[in-house]
Amino acid sequence: MNRVVVTDFFRSLQDSICTSLEQADGNGRFHEDIWKHESGGGGATRTIQEGGVFEKGGVSTSAVRGSLTGVLATRLEVSPQAFFAAGISLVLHPLSPMMPTVHTNFRYLELENGDFWFGGGADLTPYYLFDEDAIHFHQTWKQACDIHDSALYARFKAGCDEYFFLRHRGEARGIGGIFFDYLRGDFSRNFDLVKTCGNAFTKSYLPIVERRRREPWGDRERNWQLHRRGRYVEFNLIYDRGTLFGLETRGRVESILMSLPPLVRWTYDFRPEVGSREERLLTVLKQPRIWVE
Amino acid sequence: MNRVVVTDFFRSLQDSICTSLEQADGNGRFHEDIWKHESGGGGATRTIQEGGVFEKGGVSTSAVRGSLTGVLATRLEVSPQAFFAAGISLVLHPLSPMMPTVHTNFRYLELENGDFWFGGGADLTPYYLFDEDAIHFHQTWKQACDIHDSALYARFKAGCDEYFFLRHRGEARGIGGIFFDYLRGDFSRNFDLVKTCGNAFTKSYLPIVERRRREPWGDRERNWQLHRRGRYVEFNLIYDRGTLFGLETRGRVESILMSLPPLVRWTYDFRPEVGSREERLLTVLKQPRIWVE
Repeated sequence: MNRVVVTDFFRSLQDSICTSLEQADGNGRFHEDIWKHESGGGGATRTIQEGGVFEKGGVSTSAVRGSLTGVLATRLEVSPQAFFAAGISLVLHPLSPMMPTVHTNFRYLELENGDFWFGGGADLTPYYLFDEDAIHFHQTWKQACDIHDSALYARFKAGCDEYFFLRHRGEARGIGGIFFDYLRGDFSRNFDLVKTCGNAFTKSYLPIVERRRREPWGDRERNWQLHRRGRYVEFNLIYDRGTLFGLETRGRVESILMSLPPLVRWTYDFRPEVGSREERLLTVLKQPRIWVE
Repeated sequence: MNRVVVTDFFRSLQDSICTSLEQADGNGRFHEDIWKHESGGGGATRTIQEGGVFEKGGVSTSAVRGSLTGVLATRLEVSPQAFFAAGISLVLHPLSPMMPTVHTNFRYLELENGDFWFGGGADLTPYYLFDEDAIHFHQTWKQACDIHDSALYARFKAGCDEYFFLRHRGEARGIGGIFFDYLRGDFSRNFDLVKTCGNAFTKSYLPIVERRRREPWGDRERNWQLHRRGRYVEFNLIYDRGTLFGLETRGRVESILMSLPPLVRWTYDFRPEVGSREERLLTVLKQPRIWVE
């Protein structure tokens, strides 16, 4: 049964990712909370806090049944009905401002009316931009997509730039990655793509962590990181569909909001110095780049 | 002309409030930014940062013309049309966790179709609950409302409890105050009420600042404050109509988001100790109280 194989894959992916992340962190361990959803199903939220690398992070899986009503049904243009949703979602906020925050999510939805689809993506949010890191991240996702269809990456990359955009700031959340939703049609074919992508995550991110491990930083860089984390919060609370979906369907609040950064600063009208590395990041966020052809 | 007298009142109220706040702060001074709105009008945003009392605060006025479209027109159940909006809005985040955050806002709207109304309110968000402060705050607003109509306070108090509520957390933002919207009808009568309320602000809040000035606090209290500020951010970005209205009508982002606290913490599944003062606050936030009869 589709629900079962997808749920099993997300769970085993959660295990392997957490193992790799603990290894990379060196110090922190994931803590697991198992929870039930009020309307059926539940999930496993694993979080790491104040580790050697990760100041805060979470890798969660869930498989929930519920009813799709109100704005969600309207948005999907369907009548209110039962749904099943399974997914894996992760966000990692490193302590070092020289390491980027990363987000990855894959999900599978089924409606009572027989419709089903996959969605997912991965995006990188650097505080200081190292071109080689952005290229590595995009290269990894392009390779994963190319295994299945050489047209996918360009489409998913554009989808990511469009989705992770803060309209009120006129800024992308980060340097993008891939994003897709409503991937309908052949179940096996789409599931294979999601499996390839899921398995590509550690390869897309951990080499960047290794490369930036000994990069020096101080108060200035930390302060900039705390301000940029504010944008992350703004995106997740104002625009993010997953957050909205979770809160609207009465999901477990702490699991949904585990994506929020550990410490955040908002200073009125904070601006980077002209010509600084901080300003260079903003330039790239205002005009998304092509990182790999 | 109604627009002019309202705008003038908000500006002079801004002056007198800022003077009183600088006096109470002792150290900080308001910095003013004058800005223009792309579709007409503009505003004056005054902010104070790292003062003697206020870690961050803002007192803004604006008077803008624009067009009401999309979700805003839908929400108001009117066709897309021109609007005029004038308002004063303030949020103060003291450094001391023993002093509450306060928010006050009064606004006047006019539509092209001839409809016009006032809205406004004031609410208090303590990190540590001193009953006498909550009573003082409510008492002041009740007295202001009672001058005009003895039925108003109870209605506005209930409106406040309903509005400043985080559904996903099942918690009020703070201990309430007053809130009203769509106050239509006799202009002079409603404007008189808004004037009385506007002039009551300093009396509602500054005596609380004085009373808590020498209250001791340390890391534990600061940590709790940073976590609770996270709820403030969640409310403003997920639910607040003023924030949504501002961002949707392409208002000045830094003026709209000046309400966000200076430093905020989100720890996964953070909970206060059983039987602590922190837990007592939560109990009250989950079940709004009657503070004055």
